[in-house]
Amino acid sequence: MSSDNAHWLQHGLSEFELALDGWVPGDAPAGLGQAMRYGVLDGGKRLRPLLVRASAEAVHGHAEAAMRAAVAVELIHAYSLIHDDMPCMDNDVLRRGRATVHVRYGEAGAMLAGDAMQALAFEVLTPDPGVVPVGLQASLCALLARAAGHAGMAGGQAIDLASIGMPLVEAQLRDMHRRKTGALLQASVLMGAATGAVSAAGRAALSDYGAALGLAFQIVDDILDVTQASEKLGKTAGKDMDANKPTYVTVLGIASARAQANALLEQALAALARAQLGDTRRLAWLAGMVVDRDC
Amino acid sequence: MSSDNAHWLQHGLSEFELALDGWVPGDAPAGLGQAMRYGVLDGGKRLRPLLVRASAEAVHGHAEAAMRAAVAVELIHAYSLIHDDMPCMDNDVLRRGRATVHVRYGEAGAMLAGDAMQALAFEVLTPDPGVVPVGLQASLCALLARAAGHAGMAGGQAIDLASIGMPLVEAQLRDMHRRKTGALLQASVLMGAATGAVSAAGRAALSDYGAALGLAFQIVDDILDVTQASEKLGKTAGKDMDANKPTYVTVLGIASARAQANALLEQALAALARAQLGDTRRLAWLAGMVVDRDC
Repeated sequence: MSSDNAHWLQHGLSEFELALDGWVPGDAPAGLGQAMRYGVLDGGKRLRPLLVRASAEAVHGHAEAAMRAAVAVELIHAYSLIHDDMPCMDNDVLRRGRATVHVRYGEAGAMLAGDAMQALAFEVLTPDPGVVPVGLQASLCALLARAAGHAGMAGGQAIDLASIGMPLVEAQLRDMHRRKTGALLQASVLMGAATGAVSAAGRAALSDYGAALGLAFQIVDDILDVTQASEKLGKTAGKDMDANKPTYVTVLGIASARAQANALLEQALAALARAQLGDTRRLAWLAGMVVDRDC
Repeated sequence: MSSDNAHWLQHGLSEFELALDGWVPGDAPAGLGQAMRYGVLDGGKRLRPLLVRASAEAVHGHAEAAMRAAVAVELIHAYSLIHDDMPCMDNDVLRRGRATVHVRYGEAGAMLAGDAMQALAFEVLTPDPGVVPVGLQASLCALLARAAGHAGMAGGQAIDLASIGMPLVEAQLRDMHRRKTGALLQASVLMGAATGAVSAAGRAALSDYGAALGLAFQIVDDILDVTQASEKLGKTAGKDMDANKPTYVTVLGIASARAQANALLEQALAALARAQLGDTRRLAWLAGMVVDRDC
């Protein structure tokens, strides 16, 4: 990591954590606030917020809107993990190296925390009109709602659940992951882009970048699930295999999965070049990080 | 019911059901769409959509925006019932005279259907700018997010869970119900009002109307829970009592609870008079219906 990227990362993360901390209410009633804070603070790579930030910088976007978008996507991501970990879904007890929310706060507490975090995401996006222009508020809500809902993340999770023990072909696996993981990653890029001025062609190119990066992320996730230990991942390793879930590794094998992740990285970088924006080096760097990460 | 009100009700409900039916996707993947449709179509009194409609009519509001707001609040209400009925919450098997969503589609299916319905609510509120002005989209999202989240409905549910077996005093009970049920009912009125032109004083009066109606609704709910049979209610009667939950009946007794509901109706009607809007007779009628209903 160059010192320039390292500085950008450190600065971005520290601003983000501060903003997030201010948004998640510790005083929400009856322990709800504590469960929400436990589920989203102090953990995670914050890839989605970083994508929002990098994308917003590439279009010289509205800084306050970009920060709110970053908080909102991370709230949606974190709520989905909380619900996904529950006994009726993946039944996982370890996340980000700690007990999952339902282990700590009970199933009802975890469900309500997730529900409240989804609502909070839209609350964060809709301040007084003087803070963020209303047209931008509406665009950000529109992008986030569609990425989180039945056509995006929630739909992907439904396919994921239904696919246990099923011999999915690669096209079906890709469709599932495009929804489950890809939609919100892509929305992070598009929400960042929405905060500034960008041509239709530029937006389309960023959309392609986000789609390629989103799929690459999931393929690498599938690889890490079988090659890394739980301690390294901060979550239970080998879980998809144990649960008899189809993954890129079970469908393609590790070598082909790795080759496909690399090809998607090239696609992402080519899309950035097509976007013809001022400065896309953070987006390029983040795409590389997604593919080369080891946890 | 006067034939004028009966006609308004029938017409409003039939338009609403058609719009809702068009919004909830039957083709969402892996059974998600069916679970969503099962959870929100063909059932319910549709009180919140009717409040949106009546309020929008009182301010000569934007018809398309009002219909979308009506669909959105009902989606939030329905998702909350789905999650509330799950085994880790109220563990109920009967709702609107049918098996609850998790009984029919499994717990994971019910959780995801609820999650997707919350996202869909915000999707419905954020169409292309030509369909609903962006300022109105932002206002509606802002009202709904705050009513659904930690300070509103989700927060109220957290208090509800934590209050089992606790000797709440009336003020605590009121606070819980203001959040759990009242916030979304009040938001329905305010979202309807946001679709048209209304003075700050008029909006404040409608807010008071919504708050009084919301609390009256819950008090009547508590009374019906002990006085009506499950068949009549379409849900398990006597449940709060069995679960050792504090209610207006356990705290005040039936007679005082009934007196308080009537007093709140008077407050709601007085607030309407203060609002100085053109035609608030539907809102007045709905308030009466809420207090006089027998199911």
